[in-house]
Amino acid sequence: MSVIRVGLDVGGTKIDALALAPDGAFLARTRIPTGWGDHGVVEAVHDAVEALAAGGGFPVSDVESVGIGIPGLVDAEAGRVLHAVNLGVTELDLADAVQVRLPVAVAVENDVKAAALGAGSLRGDAHSMAYLNLGTGVAAGIVIDGALWRGAHGTAGEVGHLCVDPHGRVCGCGQRGCIETFCGGGAVSKAWGRGGELPLRDIFDLAEQGDPFARELREGVAFGAASAVRSLVLSADVQSVVIGGGVTALGDRLFDDIVRRLRQESAQSPFIGSLHLDERIELLPAGSPAAALGAALVGAAHLPAEIR
Amino acid sequence: MSVIRVGLDVGGTKIDALALAPDGAFLARTRIPTGWGDHGVVEAVHDAVEALAAGGGFPVSDVESVGIGIPGLVDAEAGRVLHAVNLGVTELDLADAVQVRLPVAVAVENDVKAAALGAGSLRGDAHSMAYLNLGTGVAAGIVIDGALWRGAHGTAGEVGHLCVDPHGRVCGCGQRGCIETFCGGGAVSKAWGRGGELPLRDIFDLAEQGDPFARELREGVAFGAASAVRSLVLSADVQSVVIGGGVTALGDRLFDDIVRRLRQESAQSPFIGSLHLDERIELLPAGSPAAALGAALVGAAHLPAEIR
Repeated sequence: MSVIRVGLDVGGTKIDALALAPDGAFLARTRIPTGWGDHGVVEAVHDAVEALAAGGGFPVSDVESVGIGIPGLVDAEAGRVLHAVNLGVTELDLADAVQVRLPVAVAVENDVKAAALGAGSLRGDAHSMAYLNLGTGVAAGIVIDGALWRGAHGTAGEVGHLCVDPHGRVCGCGQRGCIETFCGGGAVSKAWGRGGELPLRDIFDLAEQGDPFARELREGVAFGAASAVRSLVLSADVQSVVIGGGVTALGDRLFDDIVRRLRQESAQSPFIGSLHLDERIELLPAGSPAAALGAALVGAAHLPAEIR
Repeated sequence: MSVIRVGLDVGGTKIDALALAPDGAFLARTRIPTGWGDHGVVEAVHDAVEALAAGGGFPVSDVESVGIGIPGLVDAEAGRVLHAVNLGVTELDLADAVQVRLPVAVAVENDVKAAALGAGSLRGDAHSMAYLNLGTGVAAGIVIDGALWRGAHGTAGEVGHLCVDPHGRVCGCGQRGCIETFCGGGAVSKAWGRGGELPLRDIFDLAEQGDPFARELREGVAFGAASAVRSLVLSADVQSVVIGGGVTALGDRLFDDIVRRLRQESAQSPFIGSLHLDERIELLPAGSPAAALGAALVGAAHLPAEIR
């Protein structure tokens, strides 16, 4: 009997895979390496489903839906992904390609949007929340009444490319001083320019030792993240903002910086203070299944209505 | 028979009053001066309803609802307005006070939110739009599927206080470089500092004559308005942004500046270009009844369900 819902968060290096029972319980979770290019990604998706089945002790035929969260521009209607550069994918009809060997409901969603849905579900937010992803790039997903708010053209939550400093660094998007230039892992590492395996950690470490450029960049990370939170609240007025993504591996060092920055801004402005932004943010815990869970929900929502 | 819905847009100097027939047709429209202080505002509301009745040839007893759009912080549930400084009102239970002499459904809404609802209704926007008000201050109202999107705490659309330049002028809110410091009539007039009856028009005129400070301020107005549009699209992703408010008395001179600015930004950034922001904005026509119409809709929505 096909009753199991699978969610896959496809990242640049690994897939986080989750199997959900009909009652929403987690049946199995596993991580496997991501493939490269169209063929590699499709193979890895199949491998992930098989690994889940083996780990959870159920046959693959019990899977009724597969939801895939993937970086890049996603046409959710068509199940197509565009410009997933970290995966070597330019344009791929991912849902169709997966269904060739796995004849179940397959849905594809942008990874940040899927993570937003999952984070909202884990928190049980009744009203509204945003998931702010500080990864290589910066973007947010907005969840209203338990559903993704996509906006008119799918750019809702794209706060990474709001400009907050006309004299700031040039962004990959062509603008200057975008939020992403301050708190996106890619832009900050590039500005740092010293290489290393974990440039953000190096920056935070050296900032503590008094290095002026590291301090400037570190303060910029908090400024950028605080600007993103402010933008989400002063435009969509979401109740809470959950912050995740690779940069949040810095944990409390990052979170404390952001809270401090928000409190400084509150001290300067009674209006901003009245928003209590410092109380409306939280970090997604390390290892949270939010992204894979959100993908599973996306897949389940794609089932024909009668078996949802 | 009580069937007529009245909408009042209460401004700093005048009330724009509109009476709607049951089928939505405009029965009467009039403008009367606004009163000052709690008593003055309540009296002016009554005067406006009576002026409408006289102008439309119907008895006041035919009015079934009165909706009031008013600047300031509005508690729509309670029908209370706070800090309507331009009207000399600190805290007023406006709905209750009006109902003492006019026993009909009375609802109160922030003027920008009411105007957003009216502008959305006039355009017949199915999906999503924002009304961006460039008045003394700057704020937007967001309408999704024909209903106001208030957000978790009523700050949805408060893009006037997003900071877009950390080195910009200090805003009345305490922050630096808010959008409002660039394109709010109050802040720009203050920065100009030369008085005059229509400082914004003077600035635009002198900018054309080459005055450097006037040019800087005029470019700032377009930058601020473009930043507000970008913020609304990259956060809530509304389909269209209708721009109104006192500053838009400058008409096409202002609109052309904003379009030019948006196109410059598009030329710098393919991502921003892909949003086609220049095609998603329009000016609210001078004399538009949007604000009064929105107020009437707010009042009608406040009727007990069985007679809506």
